[in-house]
Amino acid sequence: MKQDLLDCQARIVPYIHRTPVLSSQLLNDLAGASLYFKCENFQRMGAFKFRGATNAILQLTAQQRARGVVTHSSGNFAQALALAAREVGTIAYIVMPRTAPQVKKDAVSGYGGHIIECEPTLAAREKTASDLVQKYGATFIHPSNQDEVILGQGTAALELLEDHPNLNAIFSPVGGGGLIAGTALAAHYFGNNCDVIGGEPEAADDAYRSLIAGRIETNTATNTIADGLRTELGDRNFPIIQQHVQEIIRVSEAAIIAAMRLIWERMKIIVEASSAVALAALLIEKGRFEGQKVGILLSGGNVDLLDLPFGQTKAG
Amino acid sequence: MKQDLLDCQARIVPYIHRTPVLSSQLLNDLAGASLYFKCENFQRMGAFKFRGATNAILQLTAQQRARGVVTHSSGNFAQALALAAREVGTIAYIVMPRTAPQVKKDAVSGYGGHIIECEPTLAAREKTASDLVQKYGATFIHPSNQDEVILGQGTAALELLEDHPNLNAIFSPVGGGGLIAGTALAAHYFGNNCDVIGGEPEAADDAYRSLIAGRIETNTATNTIADGLRTELGDRNFPIIQQHVQEIIRVSEAAIIAAMRLIWERMKIIVEASSAVALAALLIEKGRFEGQKVGILLSGGNVDLLDLPFGQTKAG
Repeated sequence: MKQDLLDCQARIVPYIHRTPVLSSQLLNDLAGASLYFKCENFQRMGAFKFRGATNAILQLTAQQRARGVVTHSSGNFAQALALAAREVGTIAYIVMPRTAPQVKKDAVSGYGGHIIECEPTLAAREKTASDLVQKYGATFIHPSNQDEVILGQGTAALELLEDHPNLNAIFSPVGGGGLIAGTALAAHYFGNNCDVIGGEPEAADDAYRSLIAGRIETNTATNTIADGLRTELGDRNFPIIQQHVQEIIRVSEAAIIAAMRLIWERMKIIVEASSAVALAALLIEKGRFEGQKVGILLSGGNVDLLDLPFGQTKAG
Repeated sequence: MKQDLLDCQARIVPYIHRTPVLSSQLLNDLAGASLYFKCENFQRMGAFKFRGATNAILQLTAQQRARGVVTHSSGNFAQALALAAREVGTIAYIVMPRTAPQVKKDAVSGYGGHIIECEPTLAAREKTASDLVQKYGATFIHPSNQDEVILGQGTAALELLEDHPNLNAIFSPVGGGGLIAGTALAAHYFGNNCDVIGGEPEAADDAYRSLIAGRIETNTATNTIADGLRTELGDRNFPIIQQHVQEIIRVSEAAIIAAMRLIWERMKIIVEASSAVALAALLIEKGRFEGQKVGILLSGGNVDLLDLPFGQTKAG
């Protein structure tokens, strides 16, 4: 896997932004540690997902490219695959629930993706995607549970470790598991005893429970503002997470919003709620990282400016 | 003045952040020019004002430092002077209208400033400040109309020109005139035929009218969201502006909010409305800057997240 990660990095580097790593003295003081924020909110289309999508698409054969790609997503992976497909001149069929916000549909269309709407159930999404694969001979690309995607997402941590080789730990949000699995591979092969720790919403703590149970657990509800983290682990990323992730820390909704607000107000950058989960997890357990060097993956910055959560904390 | 600017830069460099210069392919495409955004929203206390305040305070004599400094401001200069005073171990008396938002008072207190409240009129502010100078022997420092402050603000453009020496123009917001006057000096002495152009709200266009009239004009109303730009020029900065600023372009409130939203959504960084005025001015006149290299001063990032203007553009 070590060479696979390096090959992946070389493959996608002409397409992606090398995102900056920012620090904040105030947040360092607050955490009692030196924090290094990897700003994937500045990545193309606004999230790390573009890395994995690009890596997957670049490995299609000419015949596959001629027939297009399919995914189902109402989040950042939909935009990522649409943009990556446009970059290499193939077509992206994006299955989205008809109830998805118009702003998300517009974003996918803006990157040239072809939206196919379906009923808002997982079964309908999978059936619709499967039909498209049949109909067009298009290649299905999974948002998080596919090796090419996992490796692509891992390049964010790989870059972070190139810039800061002696991190004691990297905190990553945990949703479908692609980012944290890729991060775990990067830290294992390129870190210097660098732990990987996940931050996960209490309200969608399937990964936390999966690690305890030793098998992939599901969520019965996903009532979290961190909408990128409502998804569940898969059979490709779970074994990597079991082997190379030290711990998953669960955080409350209030802690997510508070961490998001800290990043906005103190760092003056825009991150989505899912990104703030990693910082929230660190702040809960900050005593354990006293004086250490800690990387934080800020996974994305796509938010609806007309629907921000800060008013909810006014009384808090 | 050329050597004064270099001396100023050397004086304040241990205290300030060298802020990054960011670009956005999408905004370049929109403007038809190559834009270089100088991110003073990432400056300490969140705005360029810290530069001028620091330069002024560092030139106090030991006796003056022992007695403290005074200013009247309800905006970023209040925080800037409070923080700069704390850095050098002197006291800052900040005269604020009693009607100023609590969040602004808290910010000044947070940096160790001593707030003295007064009635919300210019006369009351000046009288209260004058009384403090009398009472404590403190030194008055003006937010924009004082040579040390003007030079300090000019170091933002100086850094920008160090990073990008061949800018055809720099756009700056125009409020009290300190930033644009300092920018004009930097461009004159260190630019390569670099124009300086101001962006000013139509609703507080005193500087635009002052340049036409050849004397300092006042505002009868200042009903603009760009609250940092409601102030007027002074006798120290106006002559510099007359001599070295090519033009002031006025922008509507809708254009300010639209430009602010572009920066937030496309660059994923937080800027205050006053910062967006410079980009708004460029976008209005973009045809004239086709293919050019243009610097944009993003003056600050202090916003109240509970009072954002984007909902106002929902119907627009």
